[in-house]
Amino acid sequence: MKQDPIHSQLLNSHTLFQNHPAISQALAPHAQTKVYEKDDVVLRHGDAATSLWLVLNGWVKLTRQTPDGKESIVGLCTEGDVFGEAALFSHANYPYHAQTLSAQTKLAAIPAGVIRKLISENATLSGSIMALLNAHTSQAQLKLEQMSTMSAAQRLGCFLLRLCHTQANGKKTLQIPVEKHILAAYLGMKPETLSRSQQQLKPLGIAVAGHDITVDTIEKLRDFVCNSCSESGSCETEAVD
Amino acid sequence: MKQDPIHSQLLNSHTLFQNHPAISQALAPHAQTKVYEKDDVVLRHGDAATSLWLVLNGWVKLTRQTPDGKESIVGLCTEGDVFGEAALFSHANYPYHAQTLSAQTKLAAIPAGVIRKLISENATLSGSIMALLNAHTSQAQLKLEQMSTMSAAQRLGCFLLRLCHTQANGKKTLQIPVEKHILAAYLGMKPETLSRSQQQLKPLGIAVAGHDITVDTIEKLRDFVCNSCSESGSCETEAVD
Repeated sequence: MKQDPIHSQLLNSHTLFQNHPAISQALAPHAQTKVYEKDDVVLRHGDAATSLWLVLNGWVKLTRQTPDGKESIVGLCTEGDVFGEAALFSHANYPYHAQTLSAQTKLAAIPAGVIRKLISENATLSGSIMALLNAHTSQAQLKLEQMSTMSAAQRLGCFLLRLCHTQANGKKTLQIPVEKHILAAYLGMKPETLSRSQQQLKPLGIAVAGHDITVDTIEKLRDFVCNSCSESGSCETEAVD
Repeated sequence: MKQDPIHSQLLNSHTLFQNHPAISQALAPHAQTKVYEKDDVVLRHGDAATSLWLVLNGWVKLTRQTPDGKESIVGLCTEGDVFGEAALFSHANYPYHAQTLSAQTKLAAIPAGVIRKLISENATLSGSIMALLNAHTSQAQLKLEQMSTMSAAQRLGCFLLRLCHTQANGKKTLQIPVEKHILAAYLGMKPETLSRSQQQLKPLGIAVAGHDITVDTIEKLRDFVCNSCSESGSCETEAVD
């Protein structure tokens, strides 16, 4: 499948493809890239899982709804992230809604049938996919741990640190076009606690101006956050987010 | 490898083997069963991951420690559970400590080398292992969701409901030989909140006497819990815990 050159460049720089050459080689030719507007619904909870999704650019919110009407945000995905792993399994459904949070969000979709066939034929590829799934479990477990070991300001700091690695590429300004109540819910805090946490990070050289967050001194932020995490900064060397 | 007949029966009735015939057939002959005393250390955080572990009987606590000395309980495993998935990946270390909580805890260990070799040769087996890893991710994500959508009493109720499926097998009395402060920490609450939650579950027919918990009416408990969960009871049909 022929790709638009800009999308092709974004696709090849995606962490999934950069860190797992076996995945890149096998799957990249089958990826279909698409541009979404803000608030577009990408997939619905319960839909048959027909594609694995890669975020090339922009932001996507993954949410689940309880029967009594509460919504929880189970993921905030940005460039380098993967969602829709249910597509790896036959007869599986997506376990969440996915909706874009920013205009010009670029995603790549890999058809479930293609990926399942390639996995069954290619042991190296299936090993890489297992590593990806395991990284997702570790990440969710780490987030659970942080709910009890970290303060709200530390949880916000950890979220920013991770973005510095995936998004900043040497820059010190992160764009987070995510409304405050959504980011707060994702981090397991109230919007007013998020505001207080931003204030607490100021002395560490973190400045917030609208959707732009400037990180002056990544080392200070790391000292503040990673001492209360059992991974203690080793997440920075993780293969896949 | 010849197994003690009682251990062999426990091994074959483990959910991992019952629900995944491909895993059972390939791995059971290589499983080494072992009996532990209370408070035995099974593996240490950071050790090279040399085995995948199955709980046949008893209770195991998985913990992580932060550099500033906080401990978090990332898992409470009992019969039917699996831990140590790091063994699926080469050069991986265990991401937590594992320690038994009860006397006569029976575990089975499958050597990492054996399992990795079999996975690389057997596409059906690797598909089943991927499903297992994905189930673990879903479980961790669901636990995160519940921290924001459920009350403390509902979270305790959900924990008991899951045990009713894996442990009770028709019986209505669950044995949970886990100290109150450990169970409370695992469920993300204070010990006094756990006591209050037990009181709140009384009208639903849940009676606590020491380490024995009697569940009179599972339907009432389900109504109380599952309405605040996006899985809404479908976890009961999940293949692997």
